[in-house]
Amino acid sequence: MPTPAWPPARSWIANYDRSWFSDDLTAGLTVGVMLIPQGMAYALLAGLPPIYGLYAATLPLLIYAVLGTSRQLAVGPVAMDSLLTATGVGALAVVGTEQYLQLAILLALLVGAIQLLAGVLRLGFLVDLLSRPIISGFTSAAALIIGLSQLQHLLGVDLGRSSYVHEILYAALTRLTDINPITLAIGVAGMLLLIGVKRWMPAVPGPLVVVVLAIAAVYFGGLYAAGVAIVGEVPAGLPSLGFPPMVVDDIRALLPTALTIALIGFMEGIAVAKAVNARHPEYTVVPNRELVAIGASNIGSSLVSGFPVAGGFSRTAVNDQAGAATGLAAIISAGVIVLTLLFLTPLFYYLPQAVLASIIMVAVFKLIDWREAVRLWRVDRSDFWMLAATFLATLILGVQTGIAAGVALSISVHVYRSMRPHLAVLGRIEGTHTYRNVCRFPEALEQPGTLILRFDAPLYFGNMSFFEAQLESLLAERQRELHTIVLNAEGMASIDSSAMYGLRRFVTDQRSHGVTVRLAGVIGPVRDAMKKAGLYEDVGRENFFLDVDQAVHNHSRTGYALQSNVP
Amino acid sequence: MPTPAWPPARSWIANYDRSWFSDDLTAGLTVGVMLIPQGMAYALLAGLPPIYGLYAATLPLLIYAVLGTSRQLAVGPVAMDSLLTATGVGALAVVGTEQYLQLAILLALLVGAIQLLAGVLRLGFLVDLLSRPIISGFTSAAALIIGLSQLQHLLGVDLGRSSYVHEILYAALTRLTDINPITLAIGVAGMLLLIGVKRWMPAVPGPLVVVVLAIAAVYFGGLYAAGVAIVGEVPAGLPSLGFPPMVVDDIRALLPTALTIALIGFMEGIAVAKAVNARHPEYTVVPNRELVAIGASNIGSSLVSGFPVAGGFSRTAVNDQAGAATGLAAIISAGVIVLTLLFLTPLFYYLPQAVLASIIMVAVFKLIDWREAVRLWRVDRSDFWMLAATFLATLILGVQTGIAAGVALSISVHVYRSMRPHLAVLGRIEGTHTYRNVCRFPEALEQPGTLILRFDAPLYFGNMSFFEAQLESLLAERQRELHTIVLNAEGMASIDSSAMYGLRRFVTDQRSHGVTVRLAGVIGPVRDAMKKAGLYEDVGRENFFLDVDQAVHNHSRTGYALQSNVP
Repeated sequence: MPTPAWPPARSWIANYDRSWFSDDLTAGLTVGVMLIPQGMAYALLAGLPPIYGLYAATLPLLIYAVLGTSRQLAVGPVAMDSLLTATGVGALAVVGTEQYLQLAILLALLVGAIQLLAGVLRLGFLVDLLSRPIISGFTSAAALIIGLSQLQHLLGVDLGRSSYVHEILYAALTRLTDINPITLAIGVAGMLLLIGVKRWMPAVPGPLVVVVLAIAAVYFGGLYAAGVAIVGEVPAGLPSLGFPPMVVDDIRALLPTALTIALIGFMEGIAVAKAVNARHPEYTVVPNRELVAIGASNIGSSLVSGFPVAGGFSRTAVNDQAGAATGLAAIISAGVIVLTLLFLTPLFYYLPQAVLASIIMVAVFKLIDWREAVRLWRVDRSDFWMLAATFLATLILGVQTGIAAGVALSISVHVYRSMRPHLAVLGRIEGTHTYRNVCRFPEALEQPGTLILRFDAPLYFGNMSFFEAQLESLLAERQRELHTIVLNAEGMASIDSSAMYGLRRFVTDQRSHGVTVRLAGVIGPVRDAMKKAGLYEDVGRENFFLDVDQAVHNHSRTGYALQSNVP
Repeated sequence: MPTPAWPPARSWIANYDRSWFSDDLTAGLTVGVMLIPQGMAYALLAGLPPIYGLYAATLPLLIYAVLGTSRQLAVGPVAMDSLLTATGVGALAVVGTEQYLQLAILLALLVGAIQLLAGVLRLGFLVDLLSRPIISGFTSAAALIIGLSQLQHLLGVDLGRSSYVHEILYAALTRLTDINPITLAIGVAGMLLLIGVKRWMPAVPGPLVVVVLAIAAVYFGGLYAAGVAIVGEVPAGLPSLGFPPMVVDDIRALLPTALTIALIGFMEGIAVAKAVNARHPEYTVVPNRELVAIGASNIGSSLVSGFPVAGGFSRTAVNDQAGAATGLAAIISAGVIVLTLLFLTPLFYYLPQAVLASIIMVAVFKLIDWREAVRLWRVDRSDFWMLAATFLATLILGVQTGIAAGVALSISVHVYRSMRPHLAVLGRIEGTHTYRNVCRFPEALEQPGTLILRFDAPLYFGNMSFFEAQLESLLAERQRELHTIVLNAEGMASIDSSAMYGLRRFVTDQRSHGVTVRLAGVIGPVRDAMKKAGLYEDVGRENFFLDVDQAVHNHSRTGYALQSNVP
């Protein structure tokens, strides 16, 4: 799979097959119709008027269609980014004010600039720092927070804008008597309908059906007079083009949120894009180009007064299943939104907010991944605790601190493990040239006078003193006369200058006690580093062997011990 | 070497050999005599009156003698801790005030509490995070800062209390005309004498000679009248016992400095203790016990109005060379200081500060380790840049930020390397059962239809997607028909749940393309993890082999492929 041309759209435009069009059209229309209620719902989640969710579903889709390396990824407003926008901007401005709006639009610009820069600097690999347990714990907690944040719309009660689960639940409990029963009925009916349609009529766009029915019910039933909160006036027409005012203090204050969204948004998109790519070998998703594409899309979102966007799970799945072959599907989806903005906005006047809340709640609650937690509890206790810690940190300390704590924790555990790696004493399995851990293979026998060790890790400053301490205690245990120590270095992926200093000292120490240290199976890059540092001379060229068996018998069966140095 | 009894002093008290006494006495007296000028000089460096350096050289030595696992380590005021005290406390209070004094004493208590707690929690391994290049770069920069901070005492000019090299040099340049020539002459003469004595009369305690000569010169020459700054009144008697007032805000403000000193002080001490221990097999230095011992010593220092202490390089070397056999030497050194405090303080009235400055400068300038920088430039460019970055960060951003930046940088580089490890395609060396990297061994030939790979790293969330991408491009290169992929897993020290998820997907994908994936030489702990996660079933039990050769030929020469599971 060669890396495609740039911009990636060139390759599908040049080879566009007419037979693809009907599929692209179907997929584009389906996703476009899904985007109308979802966009409005996520805008509400982000603390913005619903219309801004439609703005964010126009230009970003077109930009991604041209620059994106995935042909099915559906870009636009997503739940996680909207929640992060709400918590990040909510800390700086009051919901409903012009300042809040401007900050949310500025945030999209910052997120885009960060992603674009990261793509150019080829920093896409940073997303690998998010391990599966961390993603799972964070997603479950965020889904819980997002779902509960919609409770107020479902109950028809103002519960404040906390993003802490206990505060939301406490507020709900103290205001049980203020619940608007008609609002609650609409919300619950919406949720049941969404779940039912999804299960029994998967081809039907559930959110659209629910929206149409609810508008009809409110309008014809006159429910707005009964206190059901409705969307109200939605301005018609396309957004004006232009960036928000860029104030240095605002940028500095938004930066932590922007960094988090840039990472999380990219992570969600790249994960879906890769999953879908597995079924479409005709193109290749390139992470750093995806960063550039989603970065440019976010800048585009800011230009049309939108908030941060990303490639979303559910719409991408629908787009792919509906047969989208190229980015043309996304262009058609954007067309649906543009037509809606131009002609259909008056229809949403009577849309109850409770229905938008039910759409969000149904979408996010299925992201709560308790199965993974149960599986990890059985399979990998350490990864389970990582998941649990991230989940709790996100709930208790907030979404941004939660994900940061998760990443810090998983890197710390990884570094700690590399500081205390596995070390095995090897013995020969009789009748073979194979050497294995004597603690696991009772048939593996230690060779008299020779201690054979395998250190399973790159040797570096962090584990050198552990390595020395382990060696010392192994040598102390073996009171008998040793004349040779064989280090199986096959598992030693790299060596740094601190470790070479320690290794040199160890070899010299042992030599002064009359013990020869031999190195077996040192891999190429480590041989190069050792040669450069003069360790070949300190250890003695004659003490390097191709494998353990040759080192034990001090002979080189094939004469490869020393030449083996072709770069 | 069994772990010694607790407290460690029990083992040498119980077995004390009378023949050791004369050596302990000589060493104790020598170090005690060195401590008088050094303690006073380092107090001056820390921004405190000289007498506090003597206080810090009493109780801490006795506590370490009882609790320390090294029998030669000389604890007391050291240059690095004193500098860190000066910058940390200097940011919160004005030198010479009662508040400054109280904060410095409180700092010793905090450092001690942190070290004690870290020792009890067995966090001694954290010191391994300081790689050799980081220590070298930091030490050189700190030595430069310490040395230059004494320039004002050497010139007899007030240059302010900056710890930034450029500010000190600028201040010195603007005040060249104010230099006191007699002060400068005393300082330079002191430095030359110290260097000369060290070189030609190594048995003579240079600092004491210089101090005595300088006091005589000032007193008999009447130089104090010529504007030479002298130590002045030094109060006689022992310090009163008691802890400084503990104000929560002060503790919070001092915490970063305390953490830095706790780590750096411990690091310096443990490095010297281990180096000396190599020549004394009769006892064992135990890092976590050392943390407890030095922590208790710092608490003791605070109790007698001292500032933070540590095990120092130079005095430990002298102690060991003078023949110290047990902690009794340190007790004798403390006795020398106590006698000095009781009876000799009036003698120091005429001691010129320039002489104390010359003692510090000669001591620290030899810590500037440009040889290591030159060596690393040749041998390991990446470690050279690490050293250079830490050196510059320490000079430009300050000592605390410098060491923190160095540690963060070295961990980042380590993590980045583990995210992008070495991957080799293996071929068989004809006539052997040995397989080696085909890029390095031209005689190693790939086997038809089989791709043999070696991934030199623990497989974890950080490198799983890199591993998958590398595999994909290797498979894409080989357009010919593959039927088998052999993964040599000997270098795979561990595997986490994210990596197992990816590996399972890879194996399933390949199977659907008719390619069998076999794993060779999977080490015990990884086998255990795979079995627990059900990966044995996904990969197929029949696809695990003892080594590459058996996997290539799909036969188990010894039948160990599957049993091998004794814990």
